[in-house]
Parts: sequence; structure tokens; C-alpha cells
Amino acid sequence: MFVGVMQKLSVTIWNEFVHERENAEVARIYPRGIHGTLADALRQRTELAVRTATLDEPDQGLPPAVLDATDVLVWWGHAAHAAVKDDLAARVQERVIAGMGLVVLHSGHESKIFMRLMGTGCHLCWREAGERERVWVVNPGHPIAAGLGDCIEIEHSEMYGEPFGIPTPEELIFISWFEGGEVFRGGATWTRGSGRIFYFSPGHEAYPIYHHPDIQRVITNGVLWARPQGRPAEVPRHVPVEQARQKITAHGPSVHDAAGHLVSPKS
Amino acid sequence: MFVGVMQKLSVTIWNEFVHERENAEVARIYPRGIHGTLADALRQRTELAVRTATLDEPDQGLPPAVLDATDVLVWWGHAAHAAVKDDLAARVQERVIAGMGLVVLHSGHESKIFMRLMGTGCHLCWREAGERERVWVVNPGHPIAAGLGDCIEIEHSEMYGEPFGIPTPEELIFISWFEGGEVFRGGATWTRGSGRIFYFSPGHEAYPIYHHPDIQRVITNGVLWARPQGRPAEVPRHVPVEQARQKITAHGPSVHDAAGHLVSPKS
Amino acid sequence: MFVGVMQKLSVTIWNEFVHERENAEVARIYPRGIHGTLADALRQRTELAVRTATLDEPDQGLPPAVLDATDVLVWWGHAAHAAVKDDLAARVQERVIAGMGLVVLHSGHESKIFMRLMGTGCHLCWREAGERERVWVVNPGHPIAAGLGDCIEIEHSEMYGEPFGIPTPEELIFISWFEGGEVFRGGATWTRGSGRIFYFSPGHEAYPIYHHPDIQRVITNGVLWARPQGRPAEVPRHVPVEQARQKITAHGPSVHDAAGHLVSPKS
Amino acid sequence: MFVGVMQKLSVTIWNEFVHERENAEVARIYPRGIHGTLADALRQRTELAVRTATLDEPDQGLPPAVLDATDVLVWWGHAAHAAVKDDLAARVQERVIAGMGLVVLHSGHESKIFMRLMGTGCHLCWREAGERERVWVVNPGHPIAAGLGDCIEIEHSEMYGEPFGIPTPEELIFISWFEGGEVFRGGATWTRGSGRIFYFSPGHEAYPIYHHPDIQRVITNGVLWARPQGRPAEVPRHVPVEQARQKITAHGPSVHDAAGHLVSPKS
Repeated sequence: MFVGVMQKLSVTIWNEFVHERENAEVARIYPRGIHGTLADALRQRTELAVRTATLDEPDQGLPPAVLDATDVLVWWGHAAHAAVKDDLAARVQERVIAGMGLVVLHSGHESKIFMRLMGTGCHLCWREAGERERVWVVNPGHPIAAGLGDCIEIEHSEMYGEPFGIPTPEELIFISWFEGGEVFRGGATWTRGSGRIFYFSPGHEAYPIYHHPDIQRVITNGVLWARPQGRPAEVPRHVPVEQARQKITAHGPSVHDAAGHLVSPKS
Repeated sequence: MFVGVMQKLSVTIWNEFVHERENAEVARIYPRGIHGTLADALRQRTELAVRTATLDEPDQGLPPAVLDATDVLVWWGHAAHAAVKDDLAARVQERVIAGMGLVVLHSGHESKIFMRLMGTGCHLCWREAGERERVWVVNPGHPIAAGLGDCIEIEHSEMYGEPFGIPTPEELIFISWFEGGEVFRGGATWTRGSGRIFYFSPGHEAYPIYHHPDIQRVITNGVLWARPQGRPAEVPRHVPVEQARQKITAHGPSVHDAAGHLVSPKS
Repeated sequence: MFVGVMQKLSVTIWNEFVHERENAEVARIYPRGIHGTLADALRQRTELAVRTATLDEPDQGLPPAVLDATDVLVWWGHAAHAAVKDDLAARVQERVIAGMGLVVLHSGHESKIFMRLMGTGCHLCWREAGERERVWVVNPGHPIAAGLGDCIEIEHSEMYGEPFGIPTPEELIFISWFEGGEVFRGGATWTRGSGRIFYFSPGHEAYPIYHHPDIQRVITNGVLWARPQGRPAEVPRHVPVEQARQKITAHGPSVHDAAGHLVSPKS
Repeated sequence: MFVGVMQKLSVTIWNEFVHERENAEVARIYPRGIHGTLADALRQRTELAVRTATLDEPDQGLPPAVLDATDVLVWWGHAAHAAVKDDLAARVQERVIAGMGLVVLHSGHESKIFMRLMGTGCHLCWREAGERERVWVVNPGHPIAAGLGDCIEIEHSEMYGEPFGIPTPEELIFISWFEGGEVFRGGATWTRGSGRIFYFSPGHEAYPIYHHPDIQRVITNGVLWARPQGRPAEVPRHVPVEQARQKITAHGPSVHDAAGHLVSPKS
């Protein structure tokens, strides 16, 4: 046994917070918003310092000071993807590349930030019928699956089906089975630059899925897994000839000046 | 032995065509442009139907009719990345996701289209000193390495060094060694949607690298490898309850109407 | 259009050929053995030269001359995995590493050769109840999925369920849904050395699954995809100092002699 | 800030311990064996409980009680790979699949245990000339690279060159540059079952490489990264019809009995 003193992990839960205020059924399930329920769950872990942010706040909830101080960002959006400013999506992407973790939930698969990081359309098949979903653990050795049994049973869920327009995940952790006959790669990870990304599909706002203990456990595991690990890459970087680690002599013509800037073409 | 009759593969070589017209040294090496030299090389293969396109042409060389008829697009850009319209980059991305192959050469690592498909900054370290580059085959079983020896020797090259800001390649085929002391993952592949992407780093415009037979061979192999293979995904797609492959009964509240459209929030 | 003259691909279908001779139900479905049905299907393609091999033949059906002349090997085994000689499994592994393609079917997941190439136990969950299986295409752009619709419906199948003890596939092409509630990564690829491997799970011998046109199509696609592509790696290889591509001077102590042999320790 | 009380990680460093006793030069560099130097380095971290094991000890240093209590195993071998019993290699493989971490160093690339887990020959090109090696960080965001600069400089090293006969790494962290002109994927990771594997190439016994602070840092990082994360898969597992999570009715013929055992063929 040993005792360690560690820095808390700074987690920001971002939610568009639309349906919880527009739809009485959703409001009944998440009276303080999906972000409120998720924050309560994450705050069970003393190593996490949790704040929330919503679309209607100044700077859409993520002013630079907040984003820069965030170790792991959790993202929930659905109806208002288009309202998120391109500039904010670009800043989040840059932060992920620099090492910030990102946990994208449910309909966040079509958020600007997720599509930017994947490089694909991220589309899928879907059906809202309150059918049974069974989330199978296909990678029981992965830390995001820690503490789970063979699968998670969700009595009423929205169907998300294949083909899911994502790049091949680096790690596939969960595959969902649906009562209506489909399957879905619903829990998967990628890295982009120095940042880790976890996508987790369950979480339709019309059902109380984020109150499910195992769903909360997966999201908590995902946040801990996505914490920054190393350092950002310091690129782009010009290496002058005299700083080469092996001594070399420059040869031949050049389209750059001595400082490494491209000599601007006339046009 | 058997005889097959096949459709020719439609290849478009896109070049910004700037330095060949602005810089006398580059013009001497590529009098008809880098695209001209590459087209001559690819036309050695009877199964390829090759056309070229440049930035200064109408629709920046890639009007919808041309792009839609292209099976594999080869991309060379450097000084004019910013001049490529966002709309064109978006159309190319969409075509790749639908199955078109893409071969990105040298400084194309910072082209809009490559960065969009990778989801990262795609930056690197670099030095223009005409130093020796040795391109090692790390995956001799890959079709893009077919016909090569252990490595390709390039007498004068621009150094591209790690860290290279790309997602982990699905296949790494070449790693370059540089006289000045660096290494680089210079030949790598990814898939995005139904499209295959090959990035190949040698090719600085100030040296005659695209006249090198082995470099031409790699690019030809890359074009053949990147040809469309299957079909695009037909997503997004709503699956109505009555079309589920297993009979189910819908339950619970809904945020969509019967046609699958999200019920618009008031705001 | 262009005309090409190509070498036929040499395909060997190996079958343990046990249950077809021991069990009347299986014999009724596959009167000439599973290998006979698969050979009929593959022979529809003129570019394939197909032979079959069974466990009871000399050298267990794969004498060196046959194995060395095989471009792609198809493997079906279940009851007699233990009877396959370790030496044969080692020879097949070596051939795959040198570039031969391998298509492993159904219960071949626990064959010696598949376990050797994966490095894992390759175990799974299973149930033989003649339930419905639906094989979803998750990668419609992959050549192994060419010509298929959204999924393949199999009326009676054996359930294979997760977790499946394989290394993360390089490409995941199919995921199966089962009536009894499970999912399975039933179509996946890997490379080992210069060889390509495709595993495809449907094919329980008690049901007529290999008579299904879409199943035959997948296996044919898989054989074509797995054909040798490049060349084997020529390793291990000692590079004497005087053959280094950059001139160097040897320094320091050595545990090898001049020819590169390890100086044998006394013990 | 928060305080956590954690279980120590149990690390076993295995060394064949041959050249340190047979070769005076090697003995001078590692008077208490390579394992002694590595143990001193790892013991700097209070969260690690470190023991060593050598080939000449009972049960080749790894009796079941020791192996079963090991969270991460570090492996160094070169001259005596063949002396390691197949049974021991099989037990180590089984432990990795069940979740134990494995750090394989230098010439361990041809150890029985590494080859079994990779499924390939793991061969490479090599030269012992005491030349300069420069280990570049290609993945600065990875925890195994934490605390390093752009690269590690090793003044005298053995060259290990491509092609390296490994399956595509899941993560590539380091690529080495060699003075004589080669490159090498010298730091890479894989998972097998629930276990994590890290291979790190520097460490020829004729040079004092394991005294290098950055090399020690990488190995320490690798041990921490490889710690068990989730749980083993509980497979193979038969799921009787009445235990299916969805109610189903069994159909059709069977080659198994009610308990799931294969009905033995007559032969």
C-alpha cells in the first residue's frame, strides 16, 4: 500500500440544454438538465473537480479561460448542433490535439467537434421506439469497462445502427444489440494529437438512461481514461541546418528563405 | 492464366502549379509542371485513364463533373493551400467518404483536404538542405511497396521530421531516415468512410524527386491501391418502427415526429 | 476498357471432413463435404484455380509441395483441431508470414493455426439453438463486402458471442446480431508478416449456411482480398559494418563474432 | 488536490543472466546483472514493489506462485531463448491474456513469449558496431513518453533495422535513427486479451544503455502503463438455450449434447 497526493482532474460537462426546457417529458426525467445528472454522478469521485457549461451561457459556456483549464470535456448535443459556433468547435479541436480528453455522448456523434476530429460524416441509422438495448462488453480488459458485468441492459432506448460513419476505432469496447434487429459500435476510442476521445452511444433524452448506475460508471471510467497523459507535440517547427543533430552541409536550390519562410510566389 | 476485361481507372492529378511558374530552378526540373511529370509516369499503365487539373483552371480545376468521375485523386500543393476554396475541400472530402481514393503528396500534408480528413493539424518538423533521404520499406508485403528493394535512396531531399501530427496510420509502409539525424513516417494509409487515403512524403519541388523511377512506382502502386472497392454507406437513414427487421412495439415519449424529424424546440 | 492477362490464383480449401461422415444430418446437407460445396462456389470465378484437401489425406492434405503452391488457404475445422500436427500448423504459419492468404471459417477460431497467428486464446461464448443470425455490414467500402446489401439474414445459425478473444482486428467488416440477445465480431481481418487473414464466423455444419449465396459471395470476396500482394521480408539479416549504407566505424565491445554469430556462452 | 491510498504494483524483472557472467566487458557494465540495474531504477518509484527472477533459479525463476502474483513482468533475454521451457512461455502467455502487463526489452524480440503473443517471426536486421542511435518520440502525448524531450541520444548502440516482423503496433511511440543509415520501430504497444504489451528496443548488453536516465524513465513509464486495467474475459462459455437473455426456442439438428459438449465423432 502507498499514499499518493494528486492534482484533481478538471472536468467540464457541456450540454446544449434544449430539450430539457422545451419538452415536458424530458424535463421530468432531467429536471436540472442532463448536465446536472451527469455532474452528480461524476462528483461521487473525489479525484474529479466537476463544472457544467451550457449553450446559452456567455461564449456558449466555454470561454477560453474555462476551456484552457479543462482536462476532460464531456459533450452532449442534439437539437442545436448548428448553433455551436465554428470558432468554438475549432478551439475545442485544438485543445484536444494539445492533450485535453473528450467524451462525446449519444447524439453528439453529429456535433461539429466530433465530425471535425473524425474527418468523416459520423452518420448512422436510427429509430426512436423505446426498444430494448443490450450493451455488450467486447473488451473486458479495458479500463472503461472496469466494474461492469457481461453487458448493460437498457429497457427503453433509441436504436442507433450500422453502418456508423467513423474511422476504424483504435479500441472498440462496447457493441450494442437492439430488439428491432440492429447492432452498433456504441463504445469506441480514438486519439487525435495528444488527446484521447471516447464516444459512448446510450443516452437518448426521452429515457432515463443517465440515471442507470452502469451508464454512470462507464462515463466516469471514460473521463478518467481520457485524462491528459503526455505533452503536446511542438510542431510545426523549422530546424535550421546548423541545428541539425548530425552535421550536414546544405545543397541545392531553395524555395524558402534562411528563416524557413516560403518565398512568396508572385501571384 | 485467364483473360479479364476491365473498366479503366479514372485518375485526376491535381497540382497548385505555382512554383513551377514562379521559380526558375523548379521550372527547369518540371517544365510542364509536377502534374505533367506525374501524368507521364502514370500513363505507362494501360489500366489508368489519367487527366490533370490545376488551381488556375475554372472551378479550381475540379468542377463537380470532373470530381464525380474521378476514381482516384492525386493531390500536390504547397504555397497555395489557403487559396483552395473551403467548398472544394468539402466536396473532395465528401467524395472520399463515398469511396474515391486519395493520394496526398509531400507538402499536401497541410492541405485543407488532408487536414479535414485526418481531424488533426498534420504539422511536422522540417529543413530544406538538400540532404540525403533513405525511404525504408517497413511493410514489404503491402501492395504499395511492390517492386521495391529494401529502401529508396534520394540524394537530395527536404527533411520532414517527427512528431508528425497525424492519427495513427492504419498501415505504415515507409519510414524515412535523414542525413541530419531525423526520422519520418513518410508513407502511410487510412480509410475514411468508403475511401482509401495514401500519404507519401518525398517530393520537394526544388529537387527532381518525381523523376526517380522508384518514387514513380510507389505513386503508381498507391493509385492502384486506392481505387474504390465497395460501396458508400447509405446513412443517415431513419428506420421506421414498422420496417424493423424484428417485430417490435414502440414505447415511451418521443422527441421526433412519425417521419423521424426532430420536433423543433421553440427557441 | 482494357484487357489484362493474369495468373490464376491458386486456392486450397482444407476441411477436417469429420462430421459430414459421422453425422447423418450433416451428411445430408454436405454430401461431398463442406469443402465440396465451397469448391463449387469458388469455381464460379474463372480467376481461381481451386483444389481441396482433407485431414485424412497423406500429410494431412497439405504436403509441402501443395502448401508452397497455394496462394490462399481456406480452413474449416471443429472436432479434430487437436489432430492437426503442430508441425503442419507451424508450416502454415510460416507460409502466411511469407505472404500466403488465409481464410478461417466458423469453428476454425480455435484451430491451432488461427490461435498461433493471433497470439491469443480466440475463445468465445456460444449456443447451438438454430436461432436467427443477422450479419450486418459495418464497412460497406471494404472489398469483402462488395455486392452485399445492408445485412445477411441466416434463418438458423449457431450463436457465437462476445467477448471474442482476438487481438483488435485491423478491419472489422461484419458484426452479427443473434435472436437470443448476443452480438459478435464475425468478419474481421489482420495481417501477419506479408500475409492477409480473414476470419468469417457463419458456417455451423448442422445448418446449410454454405449454400447461402451471400455467404458464398463473402468467402469468394475474402479469397480474392487475401491474395499475396507484395513480397516477404528478408529477415533476420545481419548487416556487416562495411555494408552499412552510411560509412561508420565500429566501436566498443562485442558479444558477436565477425560473421554476426552470438559468441556462445560457456553454459 | 486529493489523497489516495493505493495497492502497490507488483513488478517482476526476469533476466536470463548469461552474458553478465560469461563476458568480462558485460560484467563490468552490469556487475549485479541487467536485472539488478533495472530493479534499482524501478525502485525509485514508491508505488512499485519490485522483485527479480533469473533463468537459473528453480522453475526458471517464475514458479506459478510468483507469476500469478505479478502485475507487470519485464523480460530480458538473448543467448538463452531456447532454454526457456515451452511450458513457461505458455504460462506467461496465459497470464498476459488474463491481464498481466509485459514489457519486453531489446533482444527479447525473439523470445518465445514475445513471438507467441505476436503470432509472427519478430525478426529484424541488425549490426553491432557501437554506432549512434537516436530514439525519436513520435507520440509525445503517450504516457510512456512522459518526461522526455524530442529524442533520446544513445552514443553507442547496436543497430536494429527494418523490416521488423511484428504485427502493426496499436500504438507506435518511438522510432530509432541509426548512424549507419537505418530506422527502426523501437517502441510499440499491443494488447493481447486483457493484457498490455510494450516492446522497447534499446539495451544491448555490451553498452551501458540501461544506466541512461531517459531509458530508465521509459521503462518505468512502460511498467506503469502496462498495469492491469480491467478484468479477464470469461470465455470459452456455453450459454444454454434457457439462459439466453432473449427468450428463444431451439430448432434443428445438433452436433452437441445438452451440456454443450461436442458429440465425439466415431473416429
